[in-house]
Amino acid sequence: MSDYASLNAAQLKELQTELLEKYNTYKQEGLKLDMSRGKPSPEQLNLSNGMLDVLTSNGTLKAADGTDVRNYGGLDGLPEAKDFFSQVLEVKPEEIIIGGNSSLNLMHDTIARAMLLGVYGSNAPWGKLPAVKFLCPSPGYDRHFSICELFGIEMIVVDMKADGPDMDHIEKLVKEDEAIKGIWCVPKYSNPDGITYSDEVVERFAKMETKADDFRIFWDDAYTVHHLTDEPDRLKNILAACKAAGNADRVFMFTSTSKISFAGSGIGVFASSVNNVNFIKKQLAMQTIGSDKINQLRHVRFFKNIENLKLHMKKQAEIIKPKFDTVLSKLESELGGKNIASWFKPNGGYFISLNTLDGCAKAVVQMAKDAGVTLTGAGATYPYGNDPKDRNIRIAPTYPSLEELEKAMEILCLCVQLVSIEKKLSEQAVR
Amino acid sequence: MSDYASLNAAQLKELQTELLEKYNTYKQEGLKLDMSRGKPSPEQLNLSNGMLDVLTSNGTLKAADGTDVRNYGGLDGLPEAKDFFSQVLEVKPEEIIIGGNSSLNLMHDTIARAMLLGVYGSNAPWGKLPAVKFLCPSPGYDRHFSICELFGIEMIVVDMKADGPDMDHIEKLVKEDEAIKGIWCVPKYSNPDGITYSDEVVERFAKMETKADDFRIFWDDAYTVHHLTDEPDRLKNILAACKAAGNADRVFMFTSTSKISFAGSGIGVFASSVNNVNFIKKQLAMQTIGSDKINQLRHVRFFKNIENLKLHMKKQAEIIKPKFDTVLSKLESELGGKNIASWFKPNGGYFISLNTLDGCAKAVVQMAKDAGVTLTGAGATYPYGNDPKDRNIRIAPTYPSLEELEKAMEILCLCVQLVSIEKKLSEQAVR
Repeated sequence: MSDYASLNAAQLKELQTELLEKYNTYKQEGLKLDMSRGKPSPEQLNLSNGMLDVLTSNGTLKAADGTDVRNYGGLDGLPEAKDFFSQVLEVKPEEIIIGGNSSLNLMHDTIARAMLLGVYGSNAPWGKLPAVKFLCPSPGYDRHFSICELFGIEMIVVDMKADGPDMDHIEKLVKEDEAIKGIWCVPKYSNPDGITYSDEVVERFAKMETKADDFRIFWDDAYTVHHLTDEPDRLKNILAACKAAGNADRVFMFTSTSKISFAGSGIGVFASSVNNVNFIKKQLAMQTIGSDKINQLRHVRFFKNIENLKLHMKKQAEIIKPKFDTVLSKLESELGGKNIASWFKPNGGYFISLNTLDGCAKAVVQMAKDAGVTLTGAGATYPYGNDPKDRNIRIAPTYPSLEELEKAMEILCLCVQLVSIEKKLSEQAVR
Repeated sequence: MSDYASLNAAQLKELQTELLEKYNTYKQEGLKLDMSRGKPSPEQLNLSNGMLDVLTSNGTLKAADGTDVRNYGGLDGLPEAKDFFSQVLEVKPEEIIIGGNSSLNLMHDTIARAMLLGVYGSNAPWGKLPAVKFLCPSPGYDRHFSICELFGIEMIVVDMKADGPDMDHIEKLVKEDEAIKGIWCVPKYSNPDGITYSDEVVERFAKMETKADDFRIFWDDAYTVHHLTDEPDRLKNILAACKAAGNADRVFMFTSTSKISFAGSGIGVFASSVNNVNFIKKQLAMQTIGSDKINQLRHVRFFKNIENLKLHMKKQAEIIKPKFDTVLSKLESELGGKNIASWFKPNGGYFISLNTLDGCAKAVVQMAKDAGVTLTGAGATYPYGNDPKDRNIRIAPTYPSLEELEKAMEILCLCVQLVSIEKKLSEQAVR
């Protein structure tokens, strides 16, 4: 495991020949391995199959308050669903709106509504302003960025640090620019780095001075119960922090069961101050008569309570953890000590974030693809698909089997080495 | 049953005393009867309970094309769902997008997207224009009007005739005014009149000249299989008519199973030209990874095919028809021949539309409410809740039991008579 910096051109070329041979062998296998999206594996989905049996034609189809869950009504969700998810997010039931099958949908619609109608306290719909800007801690979640791009919201990259986004930079920007209306955050086991924001970061978010009166933090707490260890990260409660700081209406929280129960048939959840919730409910009443209450009841009856949910997530972790370990041990064994890549070891979530040498990510992803390994497109973790250092690669280990993952990682590591050698050789040639 | 016009003041007052006595007796009963919304009754919902048993943890959870319905994916719906609903709407599967649990949501989002981004062929987002106007055949569906009101779209009332909206008026308006971007239609068993548009109306819609290039018909075919007789109304296919007229992209069709399966847990469906579908799918991909596929599969497996769906709707009709008959026979026995009210006898749908004498609807609805009978708010069937003649009352007979309905109708008819007498008396006093 030599540091590549210590190798001369001849040594690099020799290594290149050796690795290329391995790469070409894999290429000839005609593999088809997909590590591109954070999809649960069939084994994970199996854990929730019992949910299909909890509501039947013979059972009671009434909610705790007597609501016939088959009929219309219930704009913000069943009482027991609001109660359950208020415990997940550590907020009050009246601070919850239960949505449809996806929190992405809730986030999209929240922005669409802000553009068309403004948020609670806005002087004008955001769409009527000359410019709307969002801060995007990056690397981040591509689907957040796509929503901004769709609606013409200008995205400003903020770097991620070890305990969350660069707060010095954020505080400076939001204090000066009234056009900055929001920020995207995945505060726990972040996508893709797996970082959980420190208490200090949460507090600074709650307290910071913003030029825009109607600035909002889009707090996508997607991985709030998705631990991989027995000592899970703790995330400070942002809504409580915002209230304490006198900025109760600053945060929109989102979560979902997409990666808890069924990815396509889960429950999306919105949480915020009662002011925000009431403001949005008035608009929401024009969009829907309420989300699928049968699915809400199914979820509540299946998970029963938070303790049981935690047990369910332990079973998920038992399936996922070996996959994360495989990725990490391959990275360590193949790339460790070579000074050509760095990565995070997350305590939870769905991703591992790999940084190559600058200018190598696109070439690595392409090379892996040529050998049958599909990764998230290089650049996808940055606004406009543009990673300025072209170095970040998001690895999604959950969907492939352990065997597939092992092979895919071998190929990925080969590609990182080969592209790095190419870079080193061209740099040496220039000197 | 005398024509009220033939009664003198003394006769009217005598009648008033007699009817008031009956009314006050009811009032003392402290009733609570709700005919306000088009909600299916528990008996109707029971017809679909078997849907809860078709997917279990033991069965196969794969769609026909091998898709694991529990996982992410399927932006526009499962192939079998698209196939099924393409038959319901008589369009091609590729002209279908399967939505979430409500077509209202699809309609709202379609307008929101048009405001923010325009529709296929727009020169600008509608929201960037100085004004956007919609034609609203009235009486119509209050939730259509609410969407326009939410987004500041100016609504223009167009009268309903016996075979659909006043096409002479519509053709004149859309030819002249570029700001008119759309029209709301419930073309079959319309809400609330129960009218089905004639072939001529459909053809004129397809062929008419519009000043706005990106004019759209919002064709809410909510009651397309909701027949009450064995000789159902036939509605001409609007998409085919638009294609034939060279205006293929003119219509957005919507339907749902809300009043077929479960009102809160059905499936919303959008259909349109492939141009429109593709344009919207690109935007939709930023909002969702796809609708609930488990619920789609559940529906398709339960209904199996169109013939079976028709049988299911016959069973619905067996429950609903006696309720419609009760309403109609009460109207006939209590108000017939008195020249104080008129109503439609629909062949399907969910409503009966009652017109009182001008200026009486609000008073009737209030009076009924005071005796415990909740009706849809007077005026709700018109844009801005403003029925210019204050005469239209929407009766929703499906939810109450037959017994409740009978009592509620007796009270309603008493109120119509009492308010009419009041009006006649004050008119006679003026003369």
